[in-house]
Amino acid sequence: MKSVVVLSGGIDSATALYKVVNDSAPSRPEDVQALSFDYGQRHVKELTFAAGLCATLGIRHIVIALRIPLASALTEPEREIPFGHYAHESMQQTVVPNRNAIMLSIAWGVAVSERAGQVVAGMHAGDHPIYPDCRPEFVHALEHALRLGNEGFGDPALSFLTPFIAMSKTDIVREGSAYPRPVPYALTWSCYLGRDLHCGRCGTCVERREAFERAGIPDPTEYEPDGR
Amino acid sequence: MKSVVVLSGGIDSATALYKVVNDSAPSRPEDVQALSFDYGQRHVKELTFAAGLCATLGIRHIVIALRIPLASALTEPEREIPFGHYAHESMQQTVVPNRNAIMLSIAWGVAVSERAGQVVAGMHAGDHPIYPDCRPEFVHALEHALRLGNEGFGDPALSFLTPFIAMSKTDIVREGSAYPRPVPYALTWSCYLGRDLHCGRCGTCVERREAFERAGIPDPTEYEPDGR
Repeated sequence: MKSVVVLSGGIDSATALYKVVNDSAPSRPEDVQALSFDYGQRHVKELTFAAGLCATLGIRHIVIALRIPLASALTEPEREIPFGHYAHESMQQTVVPNRNAIMLSIAWGVAVSERAGQVVAGMHAGDHPIYPDCRPEFVHALEHALRLGNEGFGDPALSFLTPFIAMSKTDIVREGSAYPRPVPYALTWSCYLGRDLHCGRCGTCVERREAFERAGIPDPTEYEPDGR
Repeated sequence: MKSVVVLSGGIDSATALYKVVNDSAPSRPEDVQALSFDYGQRHVKELTFAAGLCATLGIRHIVIALRIPLASALTEPEREIPFGHYAHESMQQTVVPNRNAIMLSIAWGVAVSERAGQVVAGMHAGDHPIYPDCRPEFVHALEHALRLGNEGFGDPALSFLTPFIAMSKTDIVREGSAYPRPVPYALTWSCYLGRDLHCGRCGTCVERREAFERAGIPDPTEYEPDGR
């Protein structure tokens, strides 16, 4: 079965990609392709990491540029990225309106074009309190809509695969480290600031280091010296 | 109420735009904006017409470039545009996989960002047999999904307005010609070939001329000499 994987270059989507690659035996790299999005995020650096993962695996990688005026601290340089834990209300500033519907719809269109059987995305349970478009009820509703919108085209069984939507990032890191071909987490990028090193203090950095700590797995990330 | 109108530059979306402008009294051009998409369509010329309509009305117009590998005779130069009536099976080649989900999702994201109250799109009943993403059940399902995906952000009453989804193109032309500020149909573009003049023979040209004929309204379109 062909798969289209939405890949940000972060921990969750990288693990989703490696899950697909590990699950497809014998490995057929030509059946897996990754889509990344340059949507004006200030941590556009993540795309370099996405490209690196795809090169490592020898799979196709397409970067789609989106220049859409969507209000968010992630895309508007004059706004500041909030520091602190994800659960804080301030993290709502990092919501990019309708981001997942846009990306998943584009990935679905590519999947229909190529008669792929699944569109894979890495949202996880920790995203739910902040990002409404990471919740299972949204993914189910979108899948229903997109099936109606493409009736008669592509693979009629085309589905979303969101293997981590009910899992914590800790469990994701634990799972990805245990794959026969484990996820090279040193080759992933999380930090919203997109500087040379992970800042260690923004919401996604806090979540990243917590995940490794709780999973009891050495964190391969180099954080900025004052990041702790 | 603010509106975001998806505008191709063709008859249907131009009429939808003019409906919104005519319905908002007193006219507040700053409350209406149009989004057009450059998605590699060979009739990219339609965007010039979209821009012209917006300039005429004095409203904001944003063109969003999408470079996505979607298989279609409309976007792949090596494939031929089929001639003949829309109802013919060959017109299925002009389907662009998931096009409306992608465009409507982007428009919805812009609407959430600006706290607009409606996203307006011009699909009509004649589209249904060929384009599954022009059917009302798709639009309703997508609206449901997008509301879930943006819970807590934007205007909670944000909706799709698809005023012509149950109307024929003939009725659209009749309605748009009767507005207090009528639609300048000479400033719209339909032809899939995107040459200097409308070819008069592709599916959308056939539909365009039929609509004017049946509505009993003079067709302002100049067709290629051998187009009839």
